[in-house]
Amino acid sequence: MKLYGYFRSSAAYRVRIALALKGLEYENIAVNLKPGISEQKSGEYLAVNPQGRVPFFTDGDVAISQSPAILEYLEETYSDVPLLPKGAVDRAVVRQLASLIGCDIHPLQNLSVLQRLKGEFGADTDAASDWVRHWVTEGFSAFETLITDTAGTYCFGDTVTLADVYLVPQLYNARRYETPLEAFPEIVRIDAACNALDAFRFAAPEQQPDAPAL
Amino acid sequence: MKLYGYFRSSAAYRVRIALALKGLEYENIAVNLKPGISEQKSGEYLAVNPQGRVPFFTDGDVAISQSPAILEYLEETYSDVPLLPKGAVDRAVVRQLASLIGCDIHPLQNLSVLQRLKGEFGADTDAASDWVRHWVTEGFSAFETLITDTAGTYCFGDTVTLADVYLVPQLYNARRYETPLEAFPEIVRIDAACNALDAFRFAAPEQQPDAPAL
Repeated sequence: MKLYGYFRSSAAYRVRIALALKGLEYENIAVNLKPGISEQKSGEYLAVNPQGRVPFFTDGDVAISQSPAILEYLEETYSDVPLLPKGAVDRAVVRQLASLIGCDIHPLQNLSVLQRLKGEFGADTDAASDWVRHWVTEGFSAFETLITDTAGTYCFGDTVTLADVYLVPQLYNARRYETPLEAFPEIVRIDAACNALDAFRFAAPEQQPDAPAL
Repeated sequence: MKLYGYFRSSAAYRVRIALALKGLEYENIAVNLKPGISEQKSGEYLAVNPQGRVPFFTDGDVAISQSPAILEYLEETYSDVPLLPKGAVDRAVVRQLASLIGCDIHPLQNLSVLQRLKGEFGADTDAASDWVRHWVTEGFSAFETLITDTAGTYCFGDTVTLADVYLVPQLYNARRYETPLEAFPEIVRIDAACNALDAFRFAAPEQQPDAPAL
């Protein structure tokens, strides 16, 4: 297995967490998304993944982009450590939490979106950060409400699920953009519980080979 | 079953298509998202769905928001007419296509995003439409490339899948924002093939009770 990613891409970070939780070994291939370097637009990378995005995942002959598709594939193929509960209703609850982050928050704070805000609308760094904080705060408010009914140690009961796999990278980004978190005590508590686990620690951005030295 | 939606919400449109393809009857409850009316923020609707978004779906006691979660729930619960193929690899391909639209395109052209572009960055209607066209064009370019390898009559072979369920509402939106489509002949062809089917026709925005009279 190979994972093309970037230490700070939260979609790649999700896949790293899932692979680590499932105990799967993979080759981590860094694609530097940093503006001005943009290896994702190089001919070399586009030959691997014509979409020019990360994460991109291969498992032998199988090649998949899009983290939700990669995560469902891992779930169906490597089910020893499941990240979805068993019943359809419980699975819907977990997927609802994952989608709230994957569709309502994360796409709006993607690097390409912030670059376009700056380029087309003259947003400065502060305005772009405000934009991120707005969507994170709105999405986290909904997330915090939903997990009031479902959380145990983690977002859904006492077992790690895809909801946690999505949450932790989003919280990393929320902190990066200095989003106030006082209104989200459950989210902050669950993030800490997850980060006490080896799989989450190994998957963290600062643990990746392409992260800059501290 | 009840579906809280809005005729022009493409996430609600996806769920309508899936329900129709699966032959499931439901009560269609219109929530008027039109700026200035914004029924989704009313106390009455927030009592139903505290997230204040559509679609929101109930099936007896089960209540789910987020269209990807609703669609996977329908797939697991009402499997007579499957919208995902059988093998994990084929399923990953279809989910990859669905996510490309659900994560990379649709969230960026949501009404709340366009309103914020206008409110915070002074975007006029033309600039907001340009923003939509940019993300649609970029996403469709990737989608058109991917389906070159997978399409038959529909996005994945000759059977309708979730990829088509996501594509048709996105194309409706692309047209609404007058996105040039000449570069996407396969997408346009598949959209026409889908719209020849009753399920897609019944689910179309203009067929909904809350659509304005022509």
